[in-house]
Amino acid sequence: MNRPDIKRLPKRSNPLDAQKQLLNALYSKVMPSEKVPLQDALGRVLAQDAVSNVNIPDYDKTFIDGYTINPQDTMGASIAKPAVFKIVGKLFPADYPTAIEVAKGEAVYVACGAPIPKGAAATVKVEETRLKDDKVEIIREIQPGEGIIPLGDDMKKGDLLLKKGHVLRPQDIGILASLSLTDVEVIKKPRVAIISGGDELIKQCTKNPQKIANNYALVVAGLASELGAEAQMVGIMVDTLEKVTAKVAEALANADIVVTIGGSSVGVKDFVPDAVNALGKPGVIVQGVSLRPGAISGFGLVYGKPVIMLPGHIGSCIAGFYLFAAPLISHYIGLIGDGMLPKLNAELAEDLETGPQFRFQLTHLKRLDGKLLAEQVEGGSSALTTIVKSNGFTIVAPHTTLAKGSKVEVYLFGKLELSQICA
Amino acid sequence: MNRPDIKRLPKRSNPLDAQKQLLNALYSKVMPSEKVPLQDALGRVLAQDAVSNVNIPDYDKTFIDGYTINPQDTMGASIAKPAVFKIVGKLFPADYPTAIEVAKGEAVYVACGAPIPKGAAATVKVEETRLKDDKVEIIREIQPGEGIIPLGDDMKKGDLLLKKGHVLRPQDIGILASLSLTDVEVIKKPRVAIISGGDELIKQCTKNPQKIANNYALVVAGLASELGAEAQMVGIMVDTLEKVTAKVAEALANADIVVTIGGSSVGVKDFVPDAVNALGKPGVIVQGVSLRPGAISGFGLVYGKPVIMLPGHIGSCIAGFYLFAAPLISHYIGLIGDGMLPKLNAELAEDLETGPQFRFQLTHLKRLDGKLLAEQVEGGSSALTTIVKSNGFTIVAPHTTLAKGSKVEVYLFGKLELSQICA
Repeated sequence: MNRPDIKRLPKRSNPLDAQKQLLNALYSKVMPSEKVPLQDALGRVLAQDAVSNVNIPDYDKTFIDGYTINPQDTMGASIAKPAVFKIVGKLFPADYPTAIEVAKGEAVYVACGAPIPKGAAATVKVEETRLKDDKVEIIREIQPGEGIIPLGDDMKKGDLLLKKGHVLRPQDIGILASLSLTDVEVIKKPRVAIISGGDELIKQCTKNPQKIANNYALVVAGLASELGAEAQMVGIMVDTLEKVTAKVAEALANADIVVTIGGSSVGVKDFVPDAVNALGKPGVIVQGVSLRPGAISGFGLVYGKPVIMLPGHIGSCIAGFYLFAAPLISHYIGLIGDGMLPKLNAELAEDLETGPQFRFQLTHLKRLDGKLLAEQVEGGSSALTTIVKSNGFTIVAPHTTLAKGSKVEVYLFGKLELSQICA
Repeated sequence: MNRPDIKRLPKRSNPLDAQKQLLNALYSKVMPSEKVPLQDALGRVLAQDAVSNVNIPDYDKTFIDGYTINPQDTMGASIAKPAVFKIVGKLFPADYPTAIEVAKGEAVYVACGAPIPKGAAATVKVEETRLKDDKVEIIREIQPGEGIIPLGDDMKKGDLLLKKGHVLRPQDIGILASLSLTDVEVIKKPRVAIISGGDELIKQCTKNPQKIANNYALVVAGLASELGAEAQMVGIMVDTLEKVTAKVAEALANADIVVTIGGSSVGVKDFVPDAVNALGKPGVIVQGVSLRPGAISGFGLVYGKPVIMLPGHIGSCIAGFYLFAAPLISHYIGLIGDGMLPKLNAELAEDLETGPQFRFQLTHLKRLDGKLLAEQVEGGSSALTTIVKSNGFTIVAPHTTLAKGSKVEVYLFGKLELSQICA
């Protein structure tokens, strides 16, 4: 049957198989690395192992304010019979290296962080001493090493500090700084170009269509950047095949991953699949998956660059984003598994039953009495309010029945969600 | 007893009481708001309720590609006896408003997102129709409203969409965009000026001391910015009272919160408390808390601006940061409770026993068989490696015994930690 008003979707793929197919096709496409200043490296992915090039501390030092002595000189000391030391100097952290030596019966005042001079092997707190003129009394036996952080205690030259693929946190930046690094080699952010399908989106924003038609693109851009991409909103697709093709071509030229929103179903003006096929081999690979919502998701490859085709309804769009775009971004930045996608186990708040398709179940994860509860968020797949009410999702296999209280794995949309669960 | 070499800490405060004292003293100090472009508002705190100024959708529209008809015309339709409609037009999303009307026995092709014309009240999928020349056959009874998203289904004028104090996520940015907003009123980030205590830090970085002496400041700056502050590293305190006083004064003039690292204990060169007292009333309020590590933490107020005094050892510094600086930042940006600090319940991996002080227990939270396990991280309080091995902490009351497997509340250091627990 050849009908001018109908294009049929190919047989819908198993969504997890389709995801694997995408990742396998782009297996070798991890982004190259780039050098960034340490202070800009928060949240970036380390491109190579970080190995210590220093001993920290690089000398024995005191971690208390007090007096440093040879502990042998305190043998037998007590309140009644204190060991008495002559104070022969003062040392501060800036005084390393020091020429001062401590002889038998001598003590040196050391401020926290100061080097331990030759001849001394312990420090005793100011509070545990008594001062008499230029002498100090110690009223108990001191053990060797007391009050001292030995050379290399924090790290030694050659220690593996952070592994390649680690997402840099504030403390990691600090440890790299202590290696005297001023910048660090991290994986480049993949550029994700987002094109929104035209008419419908523009029409939702009657007051100022040019400026804010991109509202779904803004959501996708935010989600992509939360996962480590450099998101670029590259505008609206106009509804002719030539213009859609030109827009996708332009995006492919300037980005590592292209994401389209809308325009890939079987409507008369759904030109994205044809555009992808027109642009180069192999073109569309998956169009339509057995996922509800999100069925009209797919992807193509144009000379090795991926075009992720997301549905135009926001709920379906989000489903397609997490099925294809999110794992691809993680893969491109060299992360394994779910990348920067936070994942938590929770109890189902209600029964959940799926039909013949996989379910992308929008979820509101909340804390209740210290437990995490996964509430199902219902609502139209075209409603942004439904996504605003949600903070994550669960993917459930077809023909599955889960009773209230069952353990499920919930993915949060991104890092920003967790704190609001806890508040 | 008057000893030139010893200053004594005041009686150590209960850390939770001291925290309350700080927050109460600055109760009225929530930051003012500022307008930022929507695309820069991710992670910012909404300064006022967001209320819908539109109906979305603002007309009845189809969410499927198909034919729109009056459902009454399908009464009694079946495969054997289809209802036949004359196709009188095509509508696309851009065609709103439309003058087309659907009379009895007529159908209009509608692409997903197109407006429902007068006279029609349902849409039926292309796949469920048969096309014969300029006529379309429908083979079942269609219910009113099928395939249609009615006006205001996603949101209605006046709906409360997001509450003041909400931390903006990508989907929130999207919903604000659908209100035709191009920018949004958010709480200003408090400027947190971080001054690091001099000599010891510089000395750890022998290769290039000027550039990277600030490594602990980098950690604190990263943690503060993760919690919503604008962190400024303002350099090193030099060890004279006059210079420390000048540095703190300069920081106070340009920041909302000043954080010092080091220089606030009882060492001979610990000038921060004296500097704070010299700068204005009331000066130092808390110096020393009953917390291990972190005992040498405190704070002062200089004419209404806080100076948080953190210890110089990184482990203690982090403890003091989360005791005083983190809740203060949350308060300044108008968040209640723990603000952006992620909090999860977990099971203790080992027994935990505290002495006479509160314990700031560095923790490594990890997932094991779907459960969250809190491992205690041990290590010197001056070791950055210990913080790198940790991803959060637990605060445990004095004289507490908790058996392995007990439920504890673990705070993650920040948003960046969660994804690495899950990977």
